[in-house]
Amino acid sequence: MALSSRGRLGTLRVFGPDSDGIVAACSNLMGKYGCNIVKSETWSDQKENMFFNRLVFTHDQPDKVACQQDLTEICKDFQLENRLNWRDRKKKVGIMVSKYDHCLWELLLRHSANELPEMDIELVISNHPDLQSVAETFQVPYHVIPVTPETKAEEEAKQLELLKNVDVVVLARYMQVLSGDFLRQFPENIINIHHSFLPAFMGGRPYHAAHDRGVKLVGATAHYATEDLDEGPIISQDVISVTHRDGVKDLMRKGRILERNVLLKALEAHLEDRVIVHKNRCIVFED
Amino acid sequence: MALSSRGRLGTLRVFGPDSDGIVAACSNLMGKYGCNIVKSETWSDQKENMFFNRLVFTHDQPDKVACQQDLTEICKDFQLENRLNWRDRKKKVGIMVSKYDHCLWELLLRHSANELPEMDIELVISNHPDLQSVAETFQVPYHVIPVTPETKAEEEAKQLELLKNVDVVVLARYMQVLSGDFLRQFPENIINIHHSFLPAFMGGRPYHAAHDRGVKLVGATAHYATEDLDEGPIISQDVISVTHRDGVKDLMRKGRILERNVLLKALEAHLEDRVIVHKNRCIVFED
Amino acid sequence: MALSSRGRLGTLRVFGPDSDGIVAACSNLMGKYGCNIVKSETWSDQKENMFFNRLVFTHDQPDKVACQQDLTEICKDFQLENRLNWRDRKKKVGIMVSKYDHCLWELLLRHSANELPEMDIELVISNHPDLQSVAETFQVPYHVIPVTPETKAEEEAKQLELLKNVDVVVLARYMQVLSGDFLRQFPENIINIHHSFLPAFMGGRPYHAAHDRGVKLVGATAHYATEDLDEGPIISQDVISVTHRDGVKDLMRKGRILERNVLLKALEAHLEDRVIVHKNRCIVFED
Amino acid sequence: MALSSRGRLGTLRVFGPDSDGIVAACSNLMGKYGCNIVKSETWSDQKENMFFNRLVFTHDQPDKVACQQDLTEICKDFQLENRLNWRDRKKKVGIMVSKYDHCLWELLLRHSANELPEMDIELVISNHPDLQSVAETFQVPYHVIPVTPETKAEEEAKQLELLKNVDVVVLARYMQVLSGDFLRQFPENIINIHHSFLPAFMGGRPYHAAHDRGVKLVGATAHYATEDLDEGPIISQDVISVTHRDGVKDLMRKGRILERNVLLKALEAHLEDRVIVHKNRCIVFED
Repeated sequence: MALSSRGRLGTLRVFGPDSDGIVAACSNLMGKYGCNIVKSETWSDQKENMFFNRLVFTHDQPDKVACQQDLTEICKDFQLENRLNWRDRKKKVGIMVSKYDHCLWELLLRHSANELPEMDIELVISNHPDLQSVAETFQVPYHVIPVTPETKAEEEAKQLELLKNVDVVVLARYMQVLSGDFLRQFPENIINIHHSFLPAFMGGRPYHAAHDRGVKLVGATAHYATEDLDEGPIISQDVISVTHRDGVKDLMRKGRILERNVLLKALEAHLEDRVIVHKNRCIVFED
Repeated sequence: MALSSRGRLGTLRVFGPDSDGIVAACSNLMGKYGCNIVKSETWSDQKENMFFNRLVFTHDQPDKVACQQDLTEICKDFQLENRLNWRDRKKKVGIMVSKYDHCLWELLLRHSANELPEMDIELVISNHPDLQSVAETFQVPYHVIPVTPETKAEEEAKQLELLKNVDVVVLARYMQVLSGDFLRQFPENIINIHHSFLPAFMGGRPYHAAHDRGVKLVGATAHYATEDLDEGPIISQDVISVTHRDGVKDLMRKGRILERNVLLKALEAHLEDRVIVHKNRCIVFED
Repeated sequence: MALSSRGRLGTLRVFGPDSDGIVAACSNLMGKYGCNIVKSETWSDQKENMFFNRLVFTHDQPDKVACQQDLTEICKDFQLENRLNWRDRKKKVGIMVSKYDHCLWELLLRHSANELPEMDIELVISNHPDLQSVAETFQVPYHVIPVTPETKAEEEAKQLELLKNVDVVVLARYMQVLSGDFLRQFPENIINIHHSFLPAFMGGRPYHAAHDRGVKLVGATAHYATEDLDEGPIISQDVISVTHRDGVKDLMRKGRILERNVLLKALEAHLEDRVIVHKNRCIVFED
Repeated sequence: MALSSRGRLGTLRVFGPDSDGIVAACSNLMGKYGCNIVKSETWSDQKENMFFNRLVFTHDQPDKVACQQDLTEICKDFQLENRLNWRDRKKKVGIMVSKYDHCLWELLLRHSANELPEMDIELVISNHPDLQSVAETFQVPYHVIPVTPETKAEEEAKQLELLKNVDVVVLARYMQVLSGDFLRQFPENIINIHHSFLPAFMGGRPYHAAHDRGVKLVGATAHYATEDLDEGPIISQDVISVTHRDGVKDLMRKGRILERNVLLKALEAHLEDRVIVHKNRCIVFED
């Protein structure tokens, strides 16, 4: 939905302490700049006394600097944070992978089918050469940067250099832990897929742990990566039934179907500016 | 959520041809009457060029007549229909049943657990005496009105007399077809639960038909009753897996779990003014 | 399915180290006693080198003592454990509850609808008087035994006295921890419903913990109670979607729907002799 | 599971009128030929008085001709049909597609990930050249055979010539109706994926029809193709939630995720000899 018949579509997210008049103030502001609101979703967290609003609006390339200034002024009065996106360009995405290919295939296939129209895939970075041919099938550059404990700092520097023009990093089963220095370069813009129903089975080998525990469902969780491994804000989760007949390999096979779906759903929400993070929880507005 | 800490909560639904400025006009109007918008959800159906908006707002008992007049005026300009509900009183619900008790139990139990705070259950009407004791467990009046093809008109007159102060009729597995005259007394206020995934298996004995077809899922559908049997606007649907081992009785047993859940979900949406019917389709806003 | 048209139905479960000829040996034995196998399900856990078999057979009241002796002999050869149940009588069930009523209602309603034909509900024990009227609606005896840390041993003695003729104990949201002495009276015959997707959120207040973590699904888990709290073998699990809009109370409300379904499913499997516990994992044969 | 540590795995399916002693007779026969039963699942359809049995057994290349003869003899006595498969070779699969690529990708990707170890993909046939590069990515031959109403008979002859050594045909969104002559070449070996929850929305453009009806779930159905279009025995079905916000294109996008999963699940069951067709219904044994 990058373009509507009535002009370009932009998004505005505002959030902060709840108070009277926020909706009217924001919709009046956008109206002043010739923007028409085609979608508005709000949410008041009464326990936290917080207000969240996401607007989708048409625009005809108004004075964006002035609009942002006015918005900043209004938000200062209401103590709100704001994220205004005119959506004049697609988000640039870098994908990081190791050896598992199912999430990478899914991202590349959905993108090539034009189902992720809000992004361009800039590159794939891996610590292994295995998936080079997958990236090449879609003419996406593939960079191999092996990582060892000793060389991690300098390898991350290389990765960051490659990612310097990227908006969003997708960890599509990248099996290395990123440093805090790396993570801080992309606040709320690194999406990881973890192969369990978090917070169950954090850390490594979650399918083995799930099998040992004898669970009857396995899950997958997409979340923003933070310095607390597997504890970042959750964007999307899903599960699939398993039985006693399923060994660890079967859990992995069934889980792969889940992982790609859950990652895709989270990425769609992120690309469409539908997520607001507040205190380690994600407000995810509907599409 | 009948009362918030900041005052009473009301709802406003407006819908009609899409045009610029609707959101701002409505939120300004409500602000003028001291109402603060705590939730707003909009939807534009670009194919139909239709706009739908649902607002939840706090109010402090303003001049309601004046507010409705102003609203009517604005809506006339925009060619919108409106539904303004100050939620000063609960909706009065009449339940109609035959012999199956699972949906009736569910409604009475959820209500007595205060999970359906927006309604009062006024009475139960049945064409059979079987479920009298269920209603009595919850001190709800139970009226037996047997219906035969010959006496249908006069029996429906008796039913309508009993239902004359009722806002919403729930057909909780009522196995008689209602006449058009009856249905027209409660436009968009009669909710039926059908025991199949509509439009599959319309009409009678859907579990038998599902078993004959060898389906691997059975469903349930809650919809507004209209004169076209089982063809009214769908509010909620769900399915459950079945296998070759499930006979018709098993489908019925599994389906009963579904039916009560689906009916409950639809009724909640209706009671919270979250549904707008447009051309045989339901816009169902999130809770 | 307590009676088939061809005679009574019994069940046989055998399990132990995998070896050749078990299926033939068991089916021949049953044939020798005039039993016809109407259902057989086997499973070989190749990793553990274990074999599991469940047979459903018709019988015409053969010499049961002799049959059990022969079976024991055969199983000795194969180093198998066996559970032979002629199903001549229903299982006697005792329900333990505290204040939440939804699981108790579900058990009583499904039982009264004849959907749990393999059991008789003998009594309900609670540490609170609140649910007396629920039990009375179905003419089931209700015993109040308050429990305090100081009196726990003697109160459990009273509970055990009441449960002395009971086969199965269902903890239908009973909020007290049972002692090892109590649990050992009913090995693999105490079913607990825990209101989370175990192993996530073990212990108290799981809905609060789930809300704090910002999960997008909440779960329920039915398992056999063991001395390791919330770590017993899992029989059944399910989840339901939640969003940022759901507060703790909403999680509880949605979770209640789950809890009753999951508990019911586990109890059905248990009553139909479809579960075999092996090393903290449940083999659950299909119905 | 093509090979176990204890030898090769084979499958036997027998079915016919229910009578005493079938299980013992079959397991004794297999024992006589040195086969050990590692899995047995039976089902009695009491309404139809039919018995179904699927055995998985290890074998060490016994005298297969003799075993089949003995089996045929036994089955004659019991009036059973039998399907004995030593699984000495993989099933040869031909895929037919038109322009949609998602099901083709899924089959090729899962196969290349060794998740469909029971099959070889022999070729892809299409009435359009569009998906040539997809097949080539996996080095699978791709044949373009355009079909018009006038040339259908001769084009089908070409297709049949290409498929002459194939065991199973998968219609992975092949948008042409096959003739009865074609279908009869592969009885119970042509699997079609239909993009609706059958029997709802049979025939063309089911997503459009689903959108028009305003359903809240869309589905996909994998079934054996028969001369009655979209009325063949159902192997697998699933659904996904949709809302008023989803236009026809969104239904298609969501449905594609479903279609590939449902087709895959059905194909797995078929390849593992887990399906028995009886009177337009599928018995699908668990994996």
